[in-house]
Amino acid sequence: MTQAADRAVFFVSDGTGITAETIGHSLLTQFQGISFRQLRLPFVDDPDKARLAVERINEAATDSGIRPIVINTLANQELSKILYGSQALVLDVFDTFLGRLEEEFGKPRSPAVGQTHGLVDYHTYESRMDATNYALKHDDGGDINYTNADVILVGVSRSGKTPTCLYLALHYGVKAANYPITDDDLEETQLPARLRPFKNKLFGLTIDPERLHQIREARRPQSRYASMKQCRTEVEEAEGLFRLHGVPCLNTTHTSVEEIASKILVALNLERNMF
Amino acid sequence: MTQAADRAVFFVSDGTGITAETIGHSLLTQFQGISFRQLRLPFVDDPDKARLAVERINEAATDSGIRPIVINTLANQELSKILYGSQALVLDVFDTFLGRLEEEFGKPRSPAVGQTHGLVDYHTYESRMDATNYALKHDDGGDINYTNADVILVGVSRSGKTPTCLYLALHYGVKAANYPITDDDLEETQLPARLRPFKNKLFGLTIDPERLHQIREARRPQSRYASMKQCRTEVEEAEGLFRLHGVPCLNTTHTSVEEIASKILVALNLERNMF
Repeated sequence: MTQAADRAVFFVSDGTGITAETIGHSLLTQFQGISFRQLRLPFVDDPDKARLAVERINEAATDSGIRPIVINTLANQELSKILYGSQALVLDVFDTFLGRLEEEFGKPRSPAVGQTHGLVDYHTYESRMDATNYALKHDDGGDINYTNADVILVGVSRSGKTPTCLYLALHYGVKAANYPITDDDLEETQLPARLRPFKNKLFGLTIDPERLHQIREARRPQSRYASMKQCRTEVEEAEGLFRLHGVPCLNTTHTSVEEIASKILVALNLERNMF
Repeated sequence: MTQAADRAVFFVSDGTGITAETIGHSLLTQFQGISFRQLRLPFVDDPDKARLAVERINEAATDSGIRPIVINTLANQELSKILYGSQALVLDVFDTFLGRLEEEFGKPRSPAVGQTHGLVDYHTYESRMDATNYALKHDDGGDINYTNADVILVGVSRSGKTPTCLYLALHYGVKAANYPITDDDLEETQLPARLRPFKNKLFGLTIDPERLHQIREARRPQSRYASMKQCRTEVEEAEGLFRLHGVPCLNTTHTSVEEIASKILVALNLERNMF
């Protein structure tokens, strides 16, 4: 089994561990060809839990015979000290940067625990929840009143509109509707009537026909809807429509939801809503 | 205006900037009482864009009279060098940790750009998309066949079930259904019949009645549904039901979606699906 030879990587946090995990992934993707076994140890917020974490880390060291890596985002320095007693290589995000910031700001850090993703600001939270409800209501041509939309995603069925709308809402509080382009729309050279008043909110998603065919086949095998011919025609015509009307457009085939969302924010200058 | 005195913080990345932003938020929340103006500079992937970033950073320095902070996650060292020429305090995530990992692994990093959130693995991507479709289909008691669910969130209307399900799906590929507890359910001491076969998949969400009242009032002002009395009764009875049947349960009032999702993964031991 190669399993035993994988190097264990632990993301240790007093909160959700999302920060540690995000940093860890970024670092590890820089090393192709090494196999990692990644584990999150969240909510480590007292000495007992820190000691338990050390036990798990040391077990991994013993089992694999390879020194584990720890990405540590514990804010509490006492808890961090316990981690340093493990057999791992500990990369300490807070320790590394907080000292330099303390110096820069001329004041010490506040010793708060696990507050990174804590719900501090109801207003921000509500704007994200409102946007999520908005996305659900305006999904797939459901509610077609786009007056309050920040962005309207346009694309053929299964081009990635729904997850992108939800991501924009959950993360950024951006109200994103989506409009599925149908055969009827594609027969026209004009933009669909409902979209015309909102031209500056439109953003097109497209996708390689081969990939679209694959996704549709998984849902409705052997259907006209999923056929290579149908996929190719729809994509070609949708892209033609975007070009003709100057709708900014992104190919989602090799792009993650995070990237798509981020590029839309930049393209439509929606970042202003974020902070 | 206090605006001018805020310290500018830039999250610079060759990809989406999500990693830099996540780290930056974690660090800045450790310094209460300082006002920051936070800006993301994503997709900085060539020298021209890096120089543009430096211009924007230097402008902020001039405008505010305070040295900006840069959280830098550029993987390319040539591009990072350009950033170092700015007037900011540059905290360099990759430079700091990649050197130590290179030493540990006995091999140099691969010089790839912007791949952190890139779509590399179709399988992972599809599991997230499948889970998102699942969450949409099984939202709010829509489809009530829970055979394939990884988790079923249970709670009164507006306790946070839907956004949590979507978050679990989009981020972790976890298939999360949700079941809204109604007045009818609350009159019973038994679990709702549809949930009984899936007891080990249940997770309860609860919320402070005052907060629930506030949220419901915003949706249906002056309704019985939103009344303080109704909110108090529903929450009490739902919590009683969770206690009686040993359903693990979390109060969402002061908890972000990220935290709720993370705690559910830990409680139901669903992390195994993640990596």
